[in-house]
Amino acid sequence: MRFDFEYTGLRVRNLDAAVEFFTKVLGMELEGRIQADWNKGEYANLRSANGKHKLELNWYASDSPLAGPFREGDELDHLGFATDDFDGALRRLAEAGYKTALGPFHEGNWHVAFVPSVEGIWLDIYHVDPKPRKSKARKKAA
Amino acid sequence: MRFDFEYTGLRVRNLDAAVEFFTKVLGMELEGRIQADWNKGEYANLRSANGKHKLELNWYASDSPLAGPFREGDELDHLGFATDDFDGALRRLAEAGYKTALGPFHEGNWHVAFVPSVEGIWLDIYHVDPKPRKSKARKKAA
Repeated sequence: MRFDFEYTGLRVRNLDAAVEFFTKVLGMELEGRIQADWNKGEYANLRSANGKHKLELNWYASDSPLAGPFREGDELDHLGFATDDFDGALRRLAEAGYKTALGPFHEGNWHVAFVPSVEGIWLDIYHVDPKPRKSKARKKAA
Repeated sequence: MRFDFEYTGLRVRNLDAAVEFFTKVLGMELEGRIQADWNKGEYANLRSANGKHKLELNWYASDSPLAGPFREGDELDHLGFATDDFDGALRRLAEAGYKTALGPFHEGNWHVAFVPSVEGIWLDIYHVDPKPRKSKARKKAA
């Protein structure tokens, strides 16, 4: 029997704002928005350009059977996004109004910062420096 | 600037029990468990056999700067797992003590059920029937 971990579903209170954040600031692609009549809700599916795993943002109308007062909690610790430009990523988030709350930490070739973002969702923004490549030219010269 | 959505980090209160659930019941592979001295915590990385996206389970000691009373909340709506054996999957979960709370729903070739699991994490267990294949033999015969 197989189970494939295919998506992470978060609940949001403002779907437009959340979709805008993940597409504009984090560059995710919006695959679609679907009205779910059975639960009086709407959800949006997003993913990173190179990834298959989806981020599903779920919004429920106040009279949805799945709704209830939104409570902040701890189940969702944070989402992890690797970036190719660590300083630029933190600048972009800060310019969008989301400041680093923990870090940045630099340990070996790891660079890590935690940023509370839209809807209070904490992000782990990180970059790993590539290990120095062995140059064939240099090898030959040695 | 690139951002790759690489992992989903959840907070759990009992790391052993959570790792056991996701490996034994959902068949995920445990990549490793890491003591994080800087935050007095420990985390485990898991992933499905065919997926790259990681599930990171985070546990914090009571005197960790990241700890605090665990509050249930709504940010994490649910995790989505596709399965190749819908009825078998629900049976396995029920046998492990986790009963379906919503559904199962059958709509077209979609089969969906929501199951609250370890640590109260809701799962969307689903299966999509493949579209019937056109048989070449039948085509020729027609």
